[in-house]
Parts: sequence; structure tokens; C-alpha cells
Amino acid sequence: MTLLDYSSSASVATDGHVEARFGDRTTRLHPQWLREQSTEPGQIEATNRQRLFTPLDVESGLVAVDAELDGDALTVAFSDGHRCRLSVAVLMQRLGWIADPEAPPTPIAWEPGAAPFPTVSWPAIAGGLDEPAVAAATVDFLSNFARHGFVIIRDTPTTGGTVAEVGNHIGYVAGNNFGWVFDVRNEPQPTDLAYTAIGLKPHTDQPYRKVQPGLQLLHCLANEAEGGDSVLVDGLAATEAMRRERPDLHETLATIEVDFRYDIGTDVAIDRRPVVQLDSAGRFHQLRFNTKLDFPVPADGADLDAWYAGRRWLAAWMDDPTHQAAFRLGRGDLIFMDNHRVLHARTAFDPTSGHRHLQGCYIEHDGPDTRYRLAVRHVAGAH
Amino acid sequence: MTLLDYSSSASVATDGHVEARFGDRTTRLHPQWLREQSTEPGQIEATNRQRLFTPLDVESGLVAVDAELDGDALTVAFSDGHRCRLSVAVLMQRLGWIADPEAPPTPIAWEPGAAPFPTVSWPAIAGGLDEPAVAAATVDFLSNFARHGFVIIRDTPTTGGTVAEVGNHIGYVAGNNFGWVFDVRNEPQPTDLAYTAIGLKPHTDQPYRKVQPGLQLLHCLANEAEGGDSVLVDGLAATEAMRRERPDLHETLATIEVDFRYDIGTDVAIDRRPVVQLDSAGRFHQLRFNTKLDFPVPADGADLDAWYAGRRWLAAWMDDPTHQAAFRLGRGDLIFMDNHRVLHARTAFDPTSGHRHLQGCYIEHDGPDTRYRLAVRHVAGAH
Repeated sequence: MTLLDYSSSASVATDGHVEARFGDRTTRLHPQWLREQSTEPGQIEATNRQRLFTPLDVESGLVAVDAELDGDALTVAFSDGHRCRLSVAVLMQRLGWIADPEAPPTPIAWEPGAAPFPTVSWPAIAGGLDEPAVAAATVDFLSNFARHGFVIIRDTPTTGGTVAEVGNHIGYVAGNNFGWVFDVRNEPQPTDLAYTAIGLKPHTDQPYRKVQPGLQLLHCLANEAEGGDSVLVDGLAATEAMRRERPDLHETLATIEVDFRYDIGTDVAIDRRPVVQLDSAGRFHQLRFNTKLDFPVPADGADLDAWYAGRRWLAAWMDDPTHQAAFRLGRGDLIFMDNHRVLHARTAFDPTSGHRHLQGCYIEHDGPDTRYRLAVRHVAGAH
Repeated sequence: MTLLDYSSSASVATDGHVEARFGDRTTRLHPQWLREQSTEPGQIEATNRQRLFTPLDVESGLVAVDAELDGDALTVAFSDGHRCRLSVAVLMQRLGWIADPEAPPTPIAWEPGAAPFPTVSWPAIAGGLDEPAVAAATVDFLSNFARHGFVIIRDTPTTGGTVAEVGNHIGYVAGNNFGWVFDVRNEPQPTDLAYTAIGLKPHTDQPYRKVQPGLQLLHCLANEAEGGDSVLVDGLAATEAMRRERPDLHETLATIEVDFRYDIGTDVAIDRRPVVQLDSAGRFHQLRFNTKLDFPVPADGADLDAWYAGRRWLAAWMDDPTHQAAFRLGRGDLIFMDNHRVLHARTAFDPTSGHRHLQGCYIEHDGPDTRYRLAVRHVAGAH
């Protein structure tokens, strides 16, 4: 990789920063920031590559005393006597000038009337990443997942507990108040409305937990009853549509806090958050939408008219078939979905007409993020 | 409970809200908010108490048509024909007028020179909450935990895997990139600096995960080496001290984003957040402090001088023995700590002088929150 051309340069400014020109852009690099990028022997541990010196080991007035470009590296000497070679490609990534090649793709809101329907066959991704075909299929699988917020995994074993095997292949199954693996079927004493035969509107799971489960896996063991069809809706598309058409309601749903309450007497979990959470740049971050257990906090000045109008707006948007991916799960199909973004629903079913039995579990976002990055490394031949 | 006196009242305003006076305070209650508090038959499922009607089932112009006080209840009739009785005590809790009696206590920052040292004996809390002594001990244990951010659990079994038993008693063990239960001892190929014999400065674990592990359990199986003493520091006290003494640095650490990178080649996890996270009211929410793998993002305008000064300020504060709880773990002791608040450290140890072996795992905040609430219910005789 050649990132540097004849006009590239590096020098030390009078304040001890490094002034660098890489390609057509210039930057001032902080001396301690550069010092802590060092991977020279003794600076980081050899296996885990973690920094061996602490903030108090670095002199507070540390400056760079020399800087020069050398091939595709920047060499810097510091006032504490240390000297290190730093990859310009890595520095440019960390400056945000070039994209992190291992970062999963950016989410894309679904288009109305054109819900994506990404699928993958489990045997294609079930192996280790040292198999080139598995690494390539994993990159495709998790790219689709990052873009669309879900993928249907086909051809999984139809034995109980498979959902945890798949979950632990992609990440680590996280416990919750229903245990690690939960059975979704019609039950006489249902500890959740999911464990009945009634229809469920689009919702995210467990907004009442301080850590709303990140990713859900739902595995179909039997789907022989009449009804019980599946629906997915894109919460990113829904909230972005609301932001365009009703910015006032979007603002309200992102502001007013809501008590999400799961309380069956013998078990209870409560969390207080807004329905829509944005990141520090104001972009969509997370949706908590579950209208069977949400109670907006009637704080002074909270405009509940607007909040109820906003929730209704979202519920109606999600109820529109042109915004839905509707399908029927077969035995061995598994829905893998981002519970912070994609909502799931089902139609009512008749439990006397046949057996319906799903198993579910949750993993966190780190799982597929790590696996995607490692798969990209394998495809790139780094291993 | 008598919450109402002769001056209490309820009536319907012209806009269909309910105007109520409970004791000495008045409020206007939104009709749909009241409608969704209904627990009358058919409104919620009998076992799980989840709402059976959806936002689109409620007429958008719903109003209250009648309201009256009746004993300790408010009875409301609505324009859709529904009528319900609502507990005034519950309404006052949801209005925030009286505290939720099941909510864990508020955190208290440790005083310099007077670190708390709450302990509990495992047999006292190991049983079911239907044993009154266990319920009472659990309330004490988890009150201490909520206030101080840690408790030392004594007298646990000294067998491997105990840490997961304790974790699953309080919550649900969550997987992470080191598995479910990880062994902390000196290793030849350490996948983390914890798995060496070197000293570790106060840190929170795994800030590089999108969900930083909530609570850590560290269980001592052997501690016979020279060195290897334990230190805990209160991140709440540290950041509040910084906010008082150096509000500029506090602001910087709460603003500038940091790439926390765990990357050993064969495993990688990266997250980008500020060191200090505040809640929507500006209060301390969460700390990510781990100076062996933090790289502030050198965005345009980011004042890295201030960021490094702030990190140094915190590191120095935490290094001050008057801010530390210092102790030595014995076999069967277990540190239960809030990884979003309390930092842990250890002194270096000499692995040739004796064996040192801890096991750790993580659970989430919901675990102790739920268990505290259920214990309070048992103590109150609700079960």
C-alpha cells in the first residue's frame, strides 16, 4: 500500500506535536497520542498487545523531538528517549481518513414495499474461519446482517438446543429472566404474552432490562398450526420516516422517558429510557418498542399527547404491510435479528390445529462484530 | 395506607384529563395514561399482567368522562366505555410523589480515607427468598451493594466453578470473549494482562465491548503467592471529585470519544465511547477506564491535552491510598463489584513463591435489581 507521495512530510512543531502531511491532507499529531501507539518491544505485551506503561509513567510534558517519514512508516523520537516506527496506514485509519477495512458495513434503512430477505444456509457458516469458504460466507452473512438488521439462517438441525449452538457460534449466549434458552409455545400459565397463541404486534424484546438484549435468535422446531406467520419491521426505517414526516413526534419519543415494566409478582424487571435512543451525533442508536408494558413517565412538562401520538404513528407505520417482511418459518429456520433495530411480530395461531414451537436466545452485538472482523482477516489472508 | 385526606379530590376537566388532588399535591392525569394503567379483567393477561390491547385499539380522541375517589382508589370512566379502579398509592409512585419501596438505595460516593468494606457470608444469602432470614440478609447485602458498588462475599465453597453458581444465584452469567468463567492466574501466553503476574492499576474490565460487562464476580481459589493484594476504588467518588475540582477535565472526559481496542490478532473487540458517561440529567452513569487499551479519537477540535490531563488526574486520584479499599483475598472470598462504577487493581505477585488462582465471571445489573425487589416483597410479606 502506498499512501505517501512526494509531497508527504513530517516534522516536529515548536510545541512538540508532529505536523504531518500524508497524501493530500495535513494533521497535527499529539505527542502522547503518538507515544501510546508504540508497539516497540517493552511497550506492549507480546501476546495480548496491551500497553505495559501507565498514564503516570509518562512525563506530563512529553514532546516529540524528531519525526521523519521512512517508507510507509512515520518514525518519531520523544523527549523520554523512546523512538518508535508507526504504520502510516494505521495512523490514517485512526485519524478517520481511511475506513477501517474490518468494520462491518453501515446499516441501510429498508425501502417501503421492498423489504430485504437475506438468507444463509447454516452449513455454509457453521465451520471454522480457517476454512476459506466459511470465512467468505461469514463475511457475506454478517455484511447482510449489519446492513439489514436480520438474516434468516436456513437448514439448521431441528433438535432442541440448536439455537444456543448457533448463538455460541456467532457470539456468547447471554442469560435473561427467562433463562438462557427459552421456549416459545402456547402455555397454560404464560410468563409472557409470547407464550400464548395470540398475535403479537411488532416489538423489541425485553425493553425493561437495563441492557436490552442485543441480538435475538429464534429457531423453529415446529410450525404446524394454522396461523403463526412471522413479520419483521425495520425500526431504523420507521424512526427515520417519522423524523422526516413528524420531527416533533420523533423528538418527543427520543426525549420522554418511559418505564418499561415486567412484573409478574414472582419476577420483576424495570428500566426507564426513551423509546428512541440517538447517538452523540443524533443518529439512530436503539429502539425500545413494546406496547404491552410501556408507561411514559408523567413528569412536569412532559407532553403525553405528543408521546401517545408518536407511539401511535410508529405502531401504524409498522402495521402497514408495505413496511413489513412477512414470511412463514419452516422447521430448521432461524431468525437472527438485531433487537435494538428490527421488530418482530407474529399472527395469532390456533394451537388445536397443530404444534408450534420455537426456541430463542440472545447474544450481544460484540459477537457478530468480532466474528466479522476475524472473517475479514481470514479472507485477506492475515491468518 | 391512608394517602387521602378530606381535601383530596378528583374530577374530569373539559379536555378529558383527570384533575386530582392527592394529599397536598395536585396533578392533571392524561386519559390514555390512566387507561393504560387499568388492570381490570380483559385489559391485562392474568399471569404475566401484560397489556392485551395495542395502541391502535385505543381511539385517538379518548377522554375521561367520570372520575371519583373511592377509599384509596381512583375510579375513572372513559369515552370508550371502560371503567377501572386504580390504586392511588401506585399512581403516586408513578408520578414520583412517593418513592418506589422496592427500588434499591441510591449510590453514595466513598469518603476519602474511609472506604467502606461491606461483607456478607455466602450461607446467609445462598438460600431461597422464601426463607425469611435469607430475604432479610439479601436486602442488606444488595442495599450495601447498591450504595457502595461492591460487597465481599465470604465463606463460599473453594471449588472451581463456584463463581458461576454465585453469579447465577444473583443473576445470569453473561458470556464474553474469555468465555463464561475465566481463570485469572499467571499464564505463559496471556490473552490479557490480567493473566500475568504484573501489578494492575485500577481499571474497569472490557471497555472495548459494546456492552461493558455490568457486574464482575472474582472468586479466590488460592492466594498463596507473595504480593497479589487487592485494591478497589470508587469511580463515582473519583469522577465527582474531578467534577468539583476540575470541571473542565470532567467535561472533556465525558465528551471526547475513545477507541477501546482489544486485539490479539486471533480475537478482536473494539468500541468507541467517552470515558465518563452521564445520564440525561448529567449524573454519573458509567465509567470506562482501562489505560492499557485506550486511544482517544483525534477528531478535529478534540483537545487531547485536556483529555490526557484528565486521564492523568483520574489515574493519580485512584493511585492515592486514601481513596482505596486495600485488602487481601483469602480462599473462598469473592469480590462482587459494579464494573460500571468500581475499579479493581492488584499488586504484582511472585508466581514462584506460591499459587494464586482466581476465577471470574460477569452478570448484568438486572440480576441484583430483580433480586433486591423480590427480597423486599418477601420481607414485606407480599409472598
